[in-house]
Order: sequence, then structure tokens, then C-alpha cells
Amino acid sequence: MKKIALLTAIGLIGLSANFASAQNNMLTKEMIDHANMIGKNALKSSVTEDVITSLTTEVGHRLAGTANDKKGREWAVAKMKEMGFDRVWTEPVPFPVWHRGNTAILRMTAPFEQNLAMTALGTSVGTPEGGITAEVVQFDEYKDLAAAAPNSLDGKIAYISFRMEDSGVAGAKGYGYAGQARRNGSVAAAKAGASAIIIRSIGTDDNRTPHTGSMTYVDGVKKIPAAAISNPDADLLDQALKYGKPVTLHMEMNPHPHDPVTTYNVFGEITGTEDPEKAVLISGHLDSWDLATGALDDGTGVSIVMSAGKHIIDGGIKPKRSIRVVLWAAEEEGLLGAHEFVRAHKEDNKDFDNMILGAEWDSGTGRIVDFEPGVGPTSLAVAREIAAVLAPYGVATLMTNTAKGDSDMSALGNAGMPAVNFGMEKTNYFDFHHTANDTLDKVDIPAITNNAAVFAMFAYLAASVDVDFRK
Amino acid sequence: MKKIALLTAIGLIGLSANFASAQNNMLTKEMIDHANMIGKNALKSSVTEDVITSLTTEVGHRLAGTANDKKGREWAVAKMKEMGFDRVWTEPVPFPVWHRGNTAILRMTAPFEQNLAMTALGTSVGTPEGGITAEVVQFDEYKDLAAAAPNSLDGKIAYISFRMEDSGVAGAKGYGYAGQARRNGSVAAAKAGASAIIIRSIGTDDNRTPHTGSMTYVDGVKKIPAAAISNPDADLLDQALKYGKPVTLHMEMNPHPHDPVTTYNVFGEITGTEDPEKAVLISGHLDSWDLATGALDDGTGVSIVMSAGKHIIDGGIKPKRSIRVVLWAAEEEGLLGAHEFVRAHKEDNKDFDNMILGAEWDSGTGRIVDFEPGVGPTSLAVAREIAAVLAPYGVATLMTNTAKGDSDMSALGNAGMPAVNFGMEKTNYFDFHHTANDTLDKVDIPAITNNAAVFAMFAYLAASVDVDFRK
Repeated sequence: MKKIALLTAIGLIGLSANFASAQNNMLTKEMIDHANMIGKNALKSSVTEDVITSLTTEVGHRLAGTANDKKGREWAVAKMKEMGFDRVWTEPVPFPVWHRGNTAILRMTAPFEQNLAMTALGTSVGTPEGGITAEVVQFDEYKDLAAAAPNSLDGKIAYISFRMEDSGVAGAKGYGYAGQARRNGSVAAAKAGASAIIIRSIGTDDNRTPHTGSMTYVDGVKKIPAAAISNPDADLLDQALKYGKPVTLHMEMNPHPHDPVTTYNVFGEITGTEDPEKAVLISGHLDSWDLATGALDDGTGVSIVMSAGKHIIDGGIKPKRSIRVVLWAAEEEGLLGAHEFVRAHKEDNKDFDNMILGAEWDSGTGRIVDFEPGVGPTSLAVAREIAAVLAPYGVATLMTNTAKGDSDMSALGNAGMPAVNFGMEKTNYFDFHHTANDTLDKVDIPAITNNAAVFAMFAYLAASVDVDFRK
Repeated sequence: MKKIALLTAIGLIGLSANFASAQNNMLTKEMIDHANMIGKNALKSSVTEDVITSLTTEVGHRLAGTANDKKGREWAVAKMKEMGFDRVWTEPVPFPVWHRGNTAILRMTAPFEQNLAMTALGTSVGTPEGGITAEVVQFDEYKDLAAAAPNSLDGKIAYISFRMEDSGVAGAKGYGYAGQARRNGSVAAAKAGASAIIIRSIGTDDNRTPHTGSMTYVDGVKKIPAAAISNPDADLLDQALKYGKPVTLHMEMNPHPHDPVTTYNVFGEITGTEDPEKAVLISGHLDSWDLATGALDDGTGVSIVMSAGKHIIDGGIKPKRSIRVVLWAAEEEGLLGAHEFVRAHKEDNKDFDNMILGAEWDSGTGRIVDFEPGVGPTSLAVAREIAAVLAPYGVATLMTNTAKGDSDMSALGNAGMPAVNFGMEKTNYFDFHHTANDTLDKVDIPAITNNAAVFAMFAYLAASVDVDFRK
């Protein structure tokens, strides 16, 4: 902090171009050499693989608020202590827990009889006892359902047949666009009088493993049951609808919300030698959906950042500022752990500005291919210097400076914390995301080992260099 | 028949090579031209697609002996009448029906708690009420379990972890080899005292859709429950076993056998103009397992041979001998419909020798790439002439002459009927075979359209040419 203040003061009185450049070049040869050593050893290590194998085998799913969520937390605390973190602790996150229940039946009863593979969307209410049997009304897209007139669906089941294109999160018809059906479909359907809503899974696969995911209800609109069917089942329903006869479905499921409980964010710290209260955060989310072992979402993030911490510890040199490995709680329900962190550290602890830089991995199993900073103008060159050290690991530096943090970290980024986003190669993530197929066999171990090396080097350098990334 | 007798007589008195060649060349230009016209029109037709879409949408699964099996039969009879077959009929097949039940729970209870995706093997008995909780004993392969000493597994659950290699039916560690675990594992496990047996699915995929399939019990050995877990679940179980602690499973399922019922083979005939009692058979099996709509196994065969018949009917010229499209019953339980056909037509009708040549499609969705006959020596050249007409459709003629018929047709081939086997390109058939993923989206419509053209041309030519394929 002292050096930063000095730098700024010097900057204000005017500098030659060379001097400014020298001052911006804050990474020392020692730092770079040490980071390279950490990275090199990380690539030879099996710890990233060991961590994700241990998590998925010993714990399994980690649906927020369940006994498995607690088991995952206990696993993480024990594992980080064993790894040699200086401090390991948890911080509470109150939230309303939800259980999927043990029944999820969808049966076409006319004009043909067929069983369809269905799963409840996260936080959906159940059907009434005995289920709902009703005619289905098909909509091509969410926006068509949103335009349905009040009472036009009275007593019907709304169905959105839109298929997500395989164009990732940002694609024009990709996850974000298609996901409107999941996030907002139940409200739109209820406004038009529907008794329930079924959506085609937000996924790119052709497996009969429907994709769950979060949805929202809003005050003043009736809560109706919401569920997803797999792509092959949606194809079948679409075929049946082509006959032009009424198609009726029997839907029965018993998910149920509960009163708020407390879950916890988990922290492991490598304590800084000079400004320990300041911290670089690297994170994943510990919770998962409950249909599988949450290997891709977000077992990979958990294993990447935990093993990155271990690589830094094993490197033997502590950085000036602290590094905190953060495992967020209740991401799937809407970044609840991260939002609570922002609230608590702004309102209660009042130390939010000590979070100097953050990066998250919640992207499955692809290799990191680029680095985009979101930092202040005077620290941008340093951020790019850090990125340049990562170049031998296949990491390109993006020339934009707009990163707000991925996933949970975006809650912190939007609250003012500087962030880095790591972009990744294309994978088949949306084939498995939020399904029963999110298991260890889908994980590319060399890729996540590589990513752990990148996270370790990044965090070490960012915590070692004397620069204020807010500026 | 008359011409064949003459040919043989001439052959016996010695022929010049040229004359013999002319006599073996029994396909006329008219036959070949007509076959080419049938094939050309078949490639332009949507009927193969229409048939498989109709079957999978309107009927769904066709587990032998169930209401859906009956529905499938009624669908087939109506469809073949609508297509203009001269005769459509069914022949009874008595067999013991089996139901999967509605419970299939497998839970690892120690050293970790995990839910595993499991499905009962076909004809398995259920667990006792309340299930079985027991330690699991792992075997690398079927042969290791088969070598287990009596009483060595008393009260345990046997588990075979062998993973099928992706080398097809005939590969050294492919379907046939790996399938020993499914077919014979329960007997081997029971002989060693096990309470139940779990096998890794006989499949090449990494989906959490376990593969069912037939298994056998033998008299004098206790019937124990037998089930398969998916490849990702087997991976998880293997990981848990690596900790070296006892692994216990809770297994609960309620499949149940019933007393024998009657199902039926379905026949559609294009009646021959000269020797109508003699028939070329082209077939698939109408029954399926119950986990999906049986699109690949064997909806493709059903649609290929039904549409091939329709293409011949649409061609407008009837062959001299009859063509029978056969949809076999209860293939999955052990070619039961085909075996009953052989028995009935040898013992009751005594017309088995009128089945002059047969071919089946029970291979999913790959393109036909070769033709292997299994005919008498004097008719071999004619069989190869037929194959030569198919060459423009990508069909190579194999120089062997050992075909006994694929799948059901092998029951007839082994009983003495000449046969042709169509080989196919490699597909991902064993990713989906016998699973919940066997649905219409997996079918390559251009490939099965092509195969229907090939079957139509083959059947038309074989029923038109005057040759005895037994000789």
C-alpha cells in the first residue's frame, strides 16, 4: 500500500516515458522465476486429479443445504488443513433449502402413451397430490409464451420446445438465450393461466438425462410446477404434436422447499507477509445440483483452485498479500454465497476493499486459452505482464479490460472488486451440465492440471506484486 | 425348380467353362433393370423414415408380452395392410413374460454414500422385499468369477467390472466376450454363494443409462438378482474399491416373471406368381427392451424390411416366388419367435424347406457395406450376381460363403435355410443398445433409406431368379 501511494504521487508530477514504463513493470525476475517453478511443478503433480477424484468419490453431489452439502464442506475444510493452508474457515450463508423429492413422472396419455424422462427445475414447487393431467400447448420459444394472453392457457400445461444451439453461453441462440425458458418460463406460463410448465432441456446432447437448473418465481404470480424433459423426449413430444390431435400429459413430481437454513462459504488462506489483510481470491463453487457428482459443475473449479493453493504452498515462498481459495456456497440457486459475502464484507466487516483481485473457474473441463483483466487503468500494464508469464501455458492476453469475474465472482466484480476472467476452449460442457451425466469420466485431467498451474501462477504473481488493481 | 433340376442334370454330364458360366448367369436384364428402378425410387422415398417415426412415436417400447408388444403388433398388421401386402398374418409364440417392475435402487452405503444408476437384466428375479445390503466383491472379468470357489461369496454381492472394448460383436474384448458377464454371470455368482450380481454395463458409452439385456438361469442353481450399472457408476464403484475398505451396497428391485403368454411373429407377403409357397424372407424383430422406444434395436430393421416390401409392391412387378417380410417376436429373450417358427414349420406345417433364402437387419443404423452369402455351391455364382447389382449402393461381395443369417435369422440358418448376411459400417450402436437412449434421434435416416433400397433389390432378385439356394 505504501509503495502504491508513492507511485501514484510520482505519476502525478509527470514522468518520462521510460521511467513510467519501468515503474509499471512491477514483476521482478525473482517473482517470474518462482511463478515458472510453481507452474512447472504443477504440471507434474497429480493433486488436481486427486482432489476431484476424492470429492466426487467420497462426497458425491452437494445440493445446497442438504446433508451432502455439509459433507462436502467438512471434506473441504479437512482437505485444506491437510494441504497446509495457514487459515481455514467458513462464513455463514442463510438461504431457503430445496429438495427434489423422489417422484418425477411425465407420461403422455394421448394420442399415444409414452413415458418421458423429466426432472424438476431447481426451486420448483411440486404438483398437487396425484399429479396434473392436462393438454399441452406448445410454444416455439420463450418469447412466444411470454406473449400469451391471460387465461389463454387456463388448465393447460405450457411447453417450450426451443432447442439450445451449441454456441456456448454468449451465442445468439446459446445458453443465455435458451435459458430464458428455464429461468422465466414458469412466471410467463402462470400469467397465462397454465397449471404447469415443461421445457426442452437447456442442453446440447441427445441423452435421456434431462437438465435441471435454477428458475424464479415472482411475488403476485402463482407458483406452478416447472420441469425439463430431455432432448430425445422433447423430439418425441414434438412428433406427437405433429399429428394435430390434442396431446395430454400426466405430470407428477414432489419437490419441496423448506424454511431457510444456513450453508457456508469455505475459505483457505495463504497468509501474506506484508499486507495480510489484502487478498487475491481464486474460487470455484462447492455446491452442485443433485443428479450426479457435480464433477464438471463445479468439481473442476474446486479442484483447480484448491490444488493451485497447494502448489503455491509447496513453492515455499509466501506472497506479500494473502491468497484466499474460496469455495462458494449455493451458487446454483443464484450466487447466494457470493452475494452474502459482498453484503457481509461491505456492511459487517467493512473490508470488501481489501479484496484486491479475483478469478473464478466455473467452466467445466476446457483448457484456459485467454486472460481478460478488469482492473484500473494504472494497473492494466501489470495485469498484462502477469498474463504474459502465462503465455507458455497457451494463455493469450485479450486487449479488452472489462472483466467483472466469472460466475460467483461476478457478484464481487459488480460490487467493485477488480477481476480477471479466464476464457476457455470449446468443450461439450452443455452436453452434461446440470444432468445425471456430470461425472468424473467427463473431466479432462490434463486440462484441469494445466488450469491449476495457470491459477497458481496468476494468484502468486498478483499477490506478490505491489500494485492496486482498483487504480 | 424345373430349370434348376435341368441345370444340375447338365452339370453332371460335364460342361464347357463358357456354357457353365452362361447357365449360372441366371439374372436377366429385365430383372436387373427392374431392381435398379426399385432401388432408385427407394432412395427418393421417405417411407423408411415414416415407418420408424410412426413406430417409435405411436407405439414406443415393445417389451415382449406386454400391452405395448400387442400395440406394436396391431400397428404392424395395420401398416402392412395399408402398404398393400397380399397377405398379412401372425403366428403364435408362447413364452414366459417378464416385467421390469418400478423399483431399481442401488446405493453405496459404505465407505461412502452414493446413488448408482442401475437396471435389472432381462428375466432377472427381484431382490427380497426391503432389498439386499451386502459387501461387494469385485472381479475383473467373468472368467475370474466363474473360477470362484463354492461358498466363497456367501452373502456377498458379486461385481464384474470388465469394460467392453469398442470393437463390435466379434472383437476380442467386444460385445460377445464382455457379454459373458451378463449372460452367465448370475449362475457363476450363485454357484459361489452370492446373494446378487452387479455387472458393469455391456456398452461403450459414458452415459448414466445402464444397459439391460438377456441373461440366463440354469436348473439346479439358485436364481439371484442380476443387474447392470452404467459405465460412470462402475467407474465410481471402482474408485471406491481402491480405498481398500469394505464397500457395501444396498440393492432393491422388483422385476417379476409371469406365467407363459402368447406373443406373435408378424408376416406380410408379396405373393409369388409361379411358386408362391416358396419364399424369400427379409426380417427384423418387432419386440424391444422397455427402457426406450427401441429405435435402433430394432426399429431400424422393422422399418427397413417393411419399407423394402413397400418399394417392391410399388415397383409393380411380382416375383415368381413369394417375398415375406417377417417381424419376429421375443428376439431379446433369446430369438424365441424365430425358434418357434423353425419348430412350427418343421414339425407342424412341414414347409420349412420352402424358405429359400433369408436375411435380417438387427444392426442399428449403419450403412450396409458388404454381402456374404451362405448358399449351396451351385447357386453361389447367382448369389454373387445379386450382390454385384448392389455394388453401386456401396455393397462389396465377400468371397466367403458361410453366412447363417443374422440375429433371429440365424435360428433358421442353423436349421438349414440358406441365408445372406449384410455387414455394416462401424457405428456407435453399443453406446445406445439396450438403454434408455435408444431413441429416434440416434437413427441415420439416409443410411436406413439406403439399406431399405438394398433389401428391396436383394429380395426382389432372389425371389425372381430360378435357382435353389440350398444347392
